[in-house]
Amino acid sequence: MAKWVYAFGDGKAEGEAGMKNLLGGKGANLAEMSNLGLPVPPGFSLTTEVCTYYYANDQTYPDDLKEQVSTALRQIGYIAKGNFGDPDKPLLVSVRSGARVSMPGMMDTVLNLGLNAQTADGLARLTGDARFAYDSYRRFIQMYADVVLGVEHALFEEILDAAKDAKGVELDTDLDSDDLKRIAGLYKDRVQSELGRPFPESVEEQLWGAIGAVFGSWHSPRANTYRKLNNIPESWGTAVTVQAMVFGNRGETSATGVAFTRDPATGEKLLYGEFLVNAQGEDVVAGIRTPQPISKVVRERQGGKKPSMEEAMPKAFAELKAIGDRLEQHYRDMQDVEFTVQEGKLFMLQTRAGKRTAEAALKAAVDMVGEGLIDQRAAIARVDPAALDQLLHPTLDPNAAKEQIAAGLGASPGAATGEVVFTAEEAEKLAADNRDVILVRTETSPEDIHGMHAARGILTARGGMTSHAAVVARGMGRPCVSGAGMLKIDAARGEMSAGGVSIQRGEVITIDGTTGQVFKGKVAMRQPELTGDFGTLMGWADSVRRLKVRTNADTPADAATARKFGAEGIGLCRTEHMFFEPDRILAVRQMILADEESQRKAALSKLLPMQRGDFEAIFKVMEGLPVTIRLLDPPLHEFLPHKDEEILEVAAAAGTDPRKLRARAIALHEANPMLGHRGCRLGITYPEIYEMQARAILEAALNVEKSGGKPVVLEIMIPLVGFKSELDRLAERIHATAAAIKAEQGRVPAYLIGTMIELPRAALRAAEIAQTAQFFSFGTNDLTQTTLGVSRDDAGTFLGEYLAKGLIARDPFVTIDVDGVGELVRMAASRGRQTRADLKLGICGEHGGDPDSIRFCHDSGLDYVSCSPFRVPVARLAAAQAALQSSTAQG
Amino acid sequence: MAKWVYAFGDGKAEGEAGMKNLLGGKGANLAEMSNLGLPVPPGFSLTTEVCTYYYANDQTYPDDLKEQVSTALRQIGYIAKGNFGDPDKPLLVSVRSGARVSMPGMMDTVLNLGLNAQTADGLARLTGDARFAYDSYRRFIQMYADVVLGVEHALFEEILDAAKDAKGVELDTDLDSDDLKRIAGLYKDRVQSELGRPFPESVEEQLWGAIGAVFGSWHSPRANTYRKLNNIPESWGTAVTVQAMVFGNRGETSATGVAFTRDPATGEKLLYGEFLVNAQGEDVVAGIRTPQPISKVVRERQGGKKPSMEEAMPKAFAELKAIGDRLEQHYRDMQDVEFTVQEGKLFMLQTRAGKRTAEAALKAAVDMVGEGLIDQRAAIARVDPAALDQLLHPTLDPNAAKEQIAAGLGASPGAATGEVVFTAEEAEKLAADNRDVILVRTETSPEDIHGMHAARGILTARGGMTSHAAVVARGMGRPCVSGAGMLKIDAARGEMSAGGVSIQRGEVITIDGTTGQVFKGKVAMRQPELTGDFGTLMGWADSVRRLKVRTNADTPADAATARKFGAEGIGLCRTEHMFFEPDRILAVRQMILADEESQRKAALSKLLPMQRGDFEAIFKVMEGLPVTIRLLDPPLHEFLPHKDEEILEVAAAAGTDPRKLRARAIALHEANPMLGHRGCRLGITYPEIYEMQARAILEAALNVEKSGGKPVVLEIMIPLVGFKSELDRLAERIHATAAAIKAEQGRVPAYLIGTMIELPRAALRAAEIAQTAQFFSFGTNDLTQTTLGVSRDDAGTFLGEYLAKGLIARDPFVTIDVDGVGELVRMAASRGRQTRADLKLGICGEHGGDPDSIRFCHDSGLDYVSCSPFRVPVARLAAAQAALQSSTAQG
Repeated sequence: MAKWVYAFGDGKAEGEAGMKNLLGGKGANLAEMSNLGLPVPPGFSLTTEVCTYYYANDQTYPDDLKEQVSTALRQIGYIAKGNFGDPDKPLLVSVRSGARVSMPGMMDTVLNLGLNAQTADGLARLTGDARFAYDSYRRFIQMYADVVLGVEHALFEEILDAAKDAKGVELDTDLDSDDLKRIAGLYKDRVQSELGRPFPESVEEQLWGAIGAVFGSWHSPRANTYRKLNNIPESWGTAVTVQAMVFGNRGETSATGVAFTRDPATGEKLLYGEFLVNAQGEDVVAGIRTPQPISKVVRERQGGKKPSMEEAMPKAFAELKAIGDRLEQHYRDMQDVEFTVQEGKLFMLQTRAGKRTAEAALKAAVDMVGEGLIDQRAAIARVDPAALDQLLHPTLDPNAAKEQIAAGLGASPGAATGEVVFTAEEAEKLAADNRDVILVRTETSPEDIHGMHAARGILTARGGMTSHAAVVARGMGRPCVSGAGMLKIDAARGEMSAGGVSIQRGEVITIDGTTGQVFKGKVAMRQPELTGDFGTLMGWADSVRRLKVRTNADTPADAATARKFGAEGIGLCRTEHMFFEPDRILAVRQMILADEESQRKAALSKLLPMQRGDFEAIFKVMEGLPVTIRLLDPPLHEFLPHKDEEILEVAAAAGTDPRKLRARAIALHEANPMLGHRGCRLGITYPEIYEMQARAILEAALNVEKSGGKPVVLEIMIPLVGFKSELDRLAERIHATAAAIKAEQGRVPAYLIGTMIELPRAALRAAEIAQTAQFFSFGTNDLTQTTLGVSRDDAGTFLGEYLAKGLIARDPFVTIDVDGVGELVRMAASRGRQTRADLKLGICGEHGGDPDSIRFCHDSGLDYVSCSPFRVPVARLAAAQAALQSSTAQG
Repeated sequence: MAKWVYAFGDGKAEGEAGMKNLLGGKGANLAEMSNLGLPVPPGFSLTTEVCTYYYANDQTYPDDLKEQVSTALRQIGYIAKGNFGDPDKPLLVSVRSGARVSMPGMMDTVLNLGLNAQTADGLARLTGDARFAYDSYRRFIQMYADVVLGVEHALFEEILDAAKDAKGVELDTDLDSDDLKRIAGLYKDRVQSELGRPFPESVEEQLWGAIGAVFGSWHSPRANTYRKLNNIPESWGTAVTVQAMVFGNRGETSATGVAFTRDPATGEKLLYGEFLVNAQGEDVVAGIRTPQPISKVVRERQGGKKPSMEEAMPKAFAELKAIGDRLEQHYRDMQDVEFTVQEGKLFMLQTRAGKRTAEAALKAAVDMVGEGLIDQRAAIARVDPAALDQLLHPTLDPNAAKEQIAAGLGASPGAATGEVVFTAEEAEKLAADNRDVILVRTETSPEDIHGMHAARGILTARGGMTSHAAVVARGMGRPCVSGAGMLKIDAARGEMSAGGVSIQRGEVITIDGTTGQVFKGKVAMRQPELTGDFGTLMGWADSVRRLKVRTNADTPADAATARKFGAEGIGLCRTEHMFFEPDRILAVRQMILADEESQRKAALSKLLPMQRGDFEAIFKVMEGLPVTIRLLDPPLHEFLPHKDEEILEVAAAAGTDPRKLRARAIALHEANPMLGHRGCRLGITYPEIYEMQARAILEAALNVEKSGGKPVVLEIMIPLVGFKSELDRLAERIHATAAAIKAEQGRVPAYLIGTMIELPRAALRAAEIAQTAQFFSFGTNDLTQTTLGVSRDDAGTFLGEYLAKGLIARDPFVTIDVDGVGELVRMAASRGRQTRADLKLGICGEHGGDPDSIRFCHDSGLDYVSCSPFRVPVARLAAAQAALQSSTAQG
């Protein structure tokens, strides 16, 4: 008989923390805590295999499941001293989802399950608190109807409001037990009239309805979106945890809360979190009432007036602190716990590794090494490289002029500037046009996730540090200010106001997610400091990584930024951006419009000193490090105007006949420019372009050397090679140019010639291409486009759907397609090295800054990755993690 | 010491026929004939290695070459009883090029070399024929100056014309020896004044100049063009053959000519060729004087008045006939020989396998099997599959109304219709717009080759069956009428006229290259008969080939044509062409414009019966053979209008708002449609389209079966698969559709589901894709585009240059890129079969009709090739040759 159900409680459990895949994160950690003897209400988990079975079998359950659930329920009842459905000793349970990894806010929960007319009366009798019993009952009906039966929440609010109006009171707390009992009846009537069938009185039916709803929610659109954003395979499924209820709403000695064992924003070691007195769990997370801090010091810092838990419930606080320490020691990581205090007694409802900002992850990791909790290697592994981004972006300049208009909680650190938008859709739309937006909402919900993802920052009027907005923003690395209560938002009119200042949709504001401040307009930013814990961790990372990290930089400024971040060279210096500079585009266009080689050469000779100057400046910054320069790559039509007005304007500026300009633009038009006359194909048909570029590079290097600069390691890179013959032909031309310079100046700097591997054919023919190429740089952007036959520009119409429908697990332009593109990379690396053992191998596609892709590069034996300047520290850390992972895998 | 020079003559030789790579075709066959004891003037060949050395060493010769040449020259002199440069016994030589394969008209030849003032006098004395001596001398100066020194031919014609004017005569023959001697002097003066240096008097200098010119001509633009068109690698180089002169211009008992051992147009076994009395070799080939037939029967058929060689020189004719038979027996193939009769004595100057039309190749091959000369396997190998095309195209309908305007020689068989153009450039330009043209020239020269290639047919006013136009047209398979003497061509005015009818540039004419007739306008054509020798050879081919041959057909008419040509199934039935039919495009557009799935389904339901009808008709034609149907492939924007007028028109017809139509067209626009939202990506995002198609296919098959037709082997093909998940998802949908049909109708026909392999990723992931796919069809058009990163639509701007510059040897869209694309095909075949041993493998790209690519498919273990209907016999023959070649290679 298959085991579908794992029980826990009373100091022991059938599961343990290692069984997350089977029990979900929540269920596994409840079992672990139970095993540790911590105060955990008894319960049991239905495994993820039930979910898999459920979807594989037309949404039915295994035959033997019912019996296993009944047995487990009886066991809970025995420990909790109650019986499910028993009016005399009613056992109430919560039903929660639990996937392998935490999916905050994404799955539905039902509390107080097991209540019906009889058991509610029984609960009233048993607790002697009729108001609590009927309040729980009407809450249960509302939550169950909403989550399981799909009856809108607002319909019940209407009934509640009507009852308050009828009684002439304003607060829920003014309703007495009779009122609530009557309201529960009205709720049930409403369900009956909405659905045409009664609200289930059978507690069994309630339980299976809730279990089905959890499994059903695995495929809800919002769960799908979250999985897509977080690369969680659909196939994992979710577990369901059923647990005896404990009540944080049994009066002033009861409470419910969440806490981190360290500050999730900064990493500071203190019990950081929030609690609500006389409340049930969902009240905290939902952000409807603003909760109070747990630790006194936090309350003081925030200037809060209401007492912290440390002050209000010192005994429970001390117990929670001790349990937090115990859990940190046990898990060797910062924990995020949920708890309930029922009439003074503490119960643990959940523990998990706490989500944290990069700053907190960094500090916690470095601190824990100091505390002897973990070693350096564990510290390296502990920080998510992708999240490091947060530390690398600018903060507000403290000396800049600022007009503050509001303040809230610093819910996710970092500063952001952008146009105000009030809906997720708008955020997504403007972001698609490369506009920076700040998403402003009263509070956020899972439906807003795509907009939060698209926004530079998030500002909410309601909710605390653990509200939906705060948790999700931290996870995404978006700056967030939450709970800015003075903000009045009128989304319909496209307006928000605070402190007498009114801001319209589209106006620019700046938020500081570290301090919680909101400013009108754009505020000057400051570059991040890369010292302290950051420097310490990077030092550890550098000591273990094998992959070098270079940068993609086309300007001296980018090159300087990248060096500050630790770049060890330039892996891709594109030369076309130099062609677009306003003072050059005219000469570039003259070159394109030239009828004869001589005219083309004349135009190129104007460009030569400019390009030479560009390279000199970059070489000076790079001070002797390697610099890979890619010769002209884009099709020539990219440099010509296409619209009629532009054509007239450009023709006038260039002194050309606009008809000729238009004709040339039309002649150069391509059906598929990605696969057209570009890359080395330009070098073959217009050799004088590449000759000019080679000359500019070599002369620049010579000039830098002559002026006492360190000689850079020059790598001249030919793009889009498919045939060895192309590379041969162009290498010949470059050698001839070098020979000419040597003849003119007496010497020429050393240089390597290599190629991008960005076409499948180049990867396949790597052995022969390496006869000529001294290095390969994998252009995985184009290699992905050609290998998958997907135009990145056009993929928007279907790739999103592929991700949403689970046809592909990852966006192949973000994380390298290891199975397809990856095989070509490995093949090219191995074939190339067979020809030339010391062939230098690197990657310069955007994958070079993606941690998972960096892991692949490490495993494939590449020498370096190259990424944008701000991704360099990310890559350093990811390279270190890759080195550690593969040494673990080998060891 | 390296051997650079191979001598022949006097019944023996240092080389033999097998040494073509070293001695060139001409040199090797002269050696072979010499070994056979045939009358060959003595000579020697400089090997192709000299050419290679020459280009590898800055156009210099090996040190020991001079001495070897001197020795060989003395040996010739000994046999020919003369000495090079000796005024008393002058030895004259010809210097000719000779590549491995014949390159007619492409290389330069110098005759009568060895003449200077002294030796010319000596020749006059020795022969007692001063006129012959000085005529030879002035010819030599003119030819040498033209070919070696680059002095224009016309300058000498001016001198000759002036001399005739001065003397008051009209014909060259009216000039006497003194005139010619003086003219030779004037020629030399002219060379001096043109070049600023004297014409070489040193015979050594003459010889080395001529040798250098031959090597130089290997890289002339026209040689490069020919190589490109004929896929001859640049690296082969040419040999140079130096041979003692014999003279066809020693009076009425002398002659020179060329002959085929069988009629090169029909294959009939008779001595077919032309000769000129009292002439030198180049007079025949150049087509300046119209020569006479060799055989009497040919003269009679052509209604010629002047005697044939058989009649005029019966002894020499008989000897030539005997030698022809001997050579056919020896080489076991039809020969093309050059000969000279000097004062009654026959000399053989060249032999080679004769170029022939497909008809001739076919007849000769089948006849030779009958004659016991070769076996069936040799006969199969003897016919060039690519040339078969000629037999498969229509001929003029004898019953059609025709207005004949001219007649010439049927120089290359087949009929062609097209617009008249007068220059090669024009031919190429119009052909690029898919217009059919007939190139009309007074005579053609190598500079016209590209225009001949572009034209549907060629018509010349001058030249015989072996003129440049005739030889080249036959080689290319272009219909050609040559020597239509009544034609007056005024290319400058863009006009031609004959028999009182005047035709302007752009007017349509029809030529019949079999009968030599020229007609005004378009003449009705008849389909070819595929019986007789054709059927015999195809039968032999079918008995040895392993590859099946299918066809690409989208209509019942194409399917029927293909079956007539022997197609064994349909390998690619595209469904999008059906969508473009005028009665359907409206529904297609409604589908595209649909805002909701329900509207889309409504539009699709209109298309369903039409598609079902299409398939029924095709299935009926195919009578139980396999039919592979590809579901919709092109991006949807291809079905929408884009120009403003069209949009208005279509919107009016569809009852749609033109703004909506325009907006949709813009929304669907793609940067790189080749890599965009097409193929199975459409099926994923609009599953109802594929469902409709699957239903149409399955219902059609069911209907055909119900009406008593043979059940076709149904293969449903999903295009552009890159991920197994795509195929899985779509296969599921198709199975669901099949299940629905089964539920509705009680049964559903058997079908296979497979995929195109047209993306590199699909090839790489073939093992897993084959878990679902029951067959693979290699879409090598797209696979070439993606593997090479070359858009076929845009390749025109650089691919031609790649071919011309030798960066690639073959157009990868014509012949599969074996090294790149080919590796992916082999990889996919092997990985796919590892998963599924009985995986059906085919190719449906245009390579499926290319003989070299078919060879590759055979070697790669594919099951079938699929090509356009007219290529089916080509493919059958090529498949047979591939089977023979690989069995030879294995044996």
